Amino acid sequence: VAKRLEKFKTTIFTQMSMLAIKHGAINLGQGFPNFDGPDFVKEAAIQAINAGKNQYARGYGVPELNSAIAERFLKDSGLQVDPEKEVTVTSGCTEAIAATILGLINPGDEVILFAPFYDSYEATLSMAGANVKAITLRPPDFSVPLEELKAAVSKNTRAIMINTPHNPTGKMFTREELEFIAALCKENDVLLFADEVYDKLAFEADHISMASIPGMYERTVTMNSLGKTFSLTGWKIGWAIAPPHLTWGVRQAHSFLTFATCTPMQAAAAAALRAPDSYYEELRRDYGAKKALLVNGLKDAGFIVYPSSGTYFIMVDHTPFGFDNDIEFCEYLIREVGVVAIPPSVFYLNPEDGKNLVRFTFCKDDETLRAAVERMKTKL
Amino acid sequence: VAKRLEKFKTTIFTQMSMLAIKHGAINLGQGFPNFDGPDFVKEAAIQAINAGKNQYARGYGVPELNSAIAERFLKDSGLQVDPEKEVTVTSGCTEAIAATILGLINPGDEVILFAPFYDSYEATLSMAGANVKAITLRPPDFSVPLEELKAAVSKNTRAIMINTPHNPTGKMFTREELEFIAALCKENDVLLFADEVYDKLAFEADHISMASIPGMYERTVTMNSLGKTFSLTGWKIGWAIAPPHLTWGVRQAHSFLTFATCTPMQAAAAAALRAPDSYYEELRRDYGAKKALLVNGLKDAGFIVYPSSGTYFIMVDHTPFGFDNDIEFCEYLIREVGVVAIPPSVFYLNPEDGKNLVRFTFCKDDETLRAAVERMKTKL
Ligand SMILES: CSCCC(=O)C(=O)O
Ligand SMILES: CSCCC(=O)C(=O)O
Repeated sequence: VAKRLEKFKTTIFTQMSMLAIKHGAINLGQGFPNFDGPDFVKEAAIQAINAGKNQYARGYGVPELNSAIAERFLKDSGLQVDPEKEVTVTSGCTEAIAATILGLINPGDEVILFAPFYDSYEATLSMAGANVKAITLRPPDFSVPLEELKAAVSKNTRAIMINTPHNPTGKMFTREELEFIAALCKENDVLLFADEVYDKLAFEADHISMASIPGMYERTVTMNSLGKTFSLTGWKIGWAIAPPHLTWGVRQAHSFLTFATCTPMQAAAAAALRAPDSYYEELRRDYGAKKALLVNGLKDAGFIVYPSSGTYFIMVDHTPFGFDNDIEFCEYLIREVGVVAIPPSVFYLNPEDGKNLVRFTFCKDDETLRAAVERMKTKL
Repeated sequence: VAKRLEKFKTTIFTQMSMLAIKHGAINLGQGFPNFDGPDFVKEAAIQAINAGKNQYARGYGVPELNSAIAERFLKDSGLQVDPEKEVTVTSGCTEAIAATILGLINPGDEVILFAPFYDSYEATLSMAGANVKAITLRPPDFSVPLEELKAAVSKNTRAIMINTPHNPTGKMFTREELEFIAALCKENDVLLFADEVYDKLAFEADHISMASIPGMYERTVTMNSLGKTFSLTGWKIGWAIAPPHLTWGVRQAHSFLTFATCTPMQAAAAAALRAPDSYYEELRRDYGAKKALLVNGLKDAGFIVYPSSGTYFIMVDHTPFGFDNDIEFCEYLIREVGVVAIPPSVFYLNPEDGKNLVRFTFCKDDETLRAAVERMKTKL
């Protein structure tokens, strides 16, 4: 294995999903719904397959999807972008992240992350030869330590990467935090990579796109995907929106990582993004109810539950149960309780920072959530 | 754009396919059929979508597809592999190439390619920080200059990458060539990356998998895809087969490049790979007839046509028409003749080596091939 990947293990999502199957445990680990996506989107995919849209798509996306992405971004963030020059369709947001990092970051460039972070950020930065600095967001509110961040920016800093709403904590970056980060980027000529896949799962306040902060669009790559919002995580349709000079780098890397993304699913994604506002409202309402169910259940079971304002994840503290660390706790939870969660220490540069924490997802049907809560209340 | 990608341009396939649309020219450029894949495979995809197989697949592939790939490899090459430990499903063969290179090659490693080569090889090697050496295959028969290859192997050589049947020349590596390369790999402890996506399009002799040469399996990554064989290039299902110690590197890179591949299309791919032998025979027969049609037409039009024994590409020499190089010839061909082909100079480290050549594909319906031939016979 190449040195750049030596330190990384099988992703925790794969490990935990396999353990869930092996032990017949209820899977509140990896963030995929156990219910299906909307019929009208599935119908659109079937129509595209039957209509023979089965050959290579244009590398940077089928025209109708690039347009639908630009229209949605205008609605959501108020920014008008050129679908032909500023939108790149990728094979999931994971590929958008890889293409952005491999397309824009040089060996030796410094990139600042907020820990905990989705594990692919660090791994792809390592592939690009970047130096990673991490600013740790700490419970209970996971707010950005502004002065620490400011002190971390150096003349080698090439980019700051944010994720809002934030996986795994459920934190949403506040306008004040975004403006502080934006000011740092502008003063120090730093790029901003914004992973906003959970933008439609914002429960307490409206999602704010970093690109919409004045002066930021020109230095920002905004990444998003179909999967979380349309409960079709397996379709692997993602995208990156950026001004032409940054899109050029993203597209170059994308061309050689996957070349193009599954054609009939792109046609269906275009149909999905044109869903009426009511679709998004209903999604938020449904997930709001699931969130309440899980939050209450976790409290009743005895966890210290941290507030989550976005995503479909809840971060809790397991110390009331007396385990040494998150891995041991999660192993017990699978084996003795029959519930799978994600141990977050893998999302920190320093695993110690995450050892008291556990992440649960509520993207499951109510029956599953209730059964998991019942198990934890009785067996923990 | 990151320095590693600075020298690369928009891929020639995208450029040429866009020019084809703009000029209403007949597209014999990029290798995608203008006819549809088989109904039974499309049906299997539709069934998977309707059955709710729409969430994240297991990162390295859905179990039924990993098994189908292993079964096919056994049939085709006589090698028994473990679907769970030696097969990785990727988003097209392009991703298999990227994951293999980024997962196994370190900065400063030397990798030997045969020019002309599919453009992603050089670009992903550049992303990995490798040093690329290229051995040029020359017309008319594009045979491997054995002594030149031997002299090129040094103590820094980490891998040799082959593509058989070979895009863009249609050459198939002979058993003697494969054995010579194998001996070099074994003597010098060099890995072998084998892109065999055109294995089912072998017209004059049977395809020989490099992994089947004695002693080679343990040092070989064999890459293949669904798209070429099943006329579904847009579905982007590929895979890499390798012994566990190499699969580990491939999977690590794959986990962070795309994480997983489109779930319902994987289910359909498993159905496809279990097609009866008659499917493959018919495919070869149909393409054999198309090949004859195009080869004869190109000869009649005045090209020097080099023999092609595999793939759906034909390499020709355009010098009888008096143009300075392949780019100028292809521009004339699009604008004045209304046919798109691929200028192969982009597939060489030294573009001069390809300046007299042009690549045509015959993966189009007969009417399209006839119309293209007619235009070239009358307007060239
Ligand atoms: C490939 S896992 C993507 C992110 C996610 O779903 C999770 O964090 O669980
Ligand atoms: C993404 S293009 C893949 C290879 C091919 O089809 C070609 O060489 O034309």
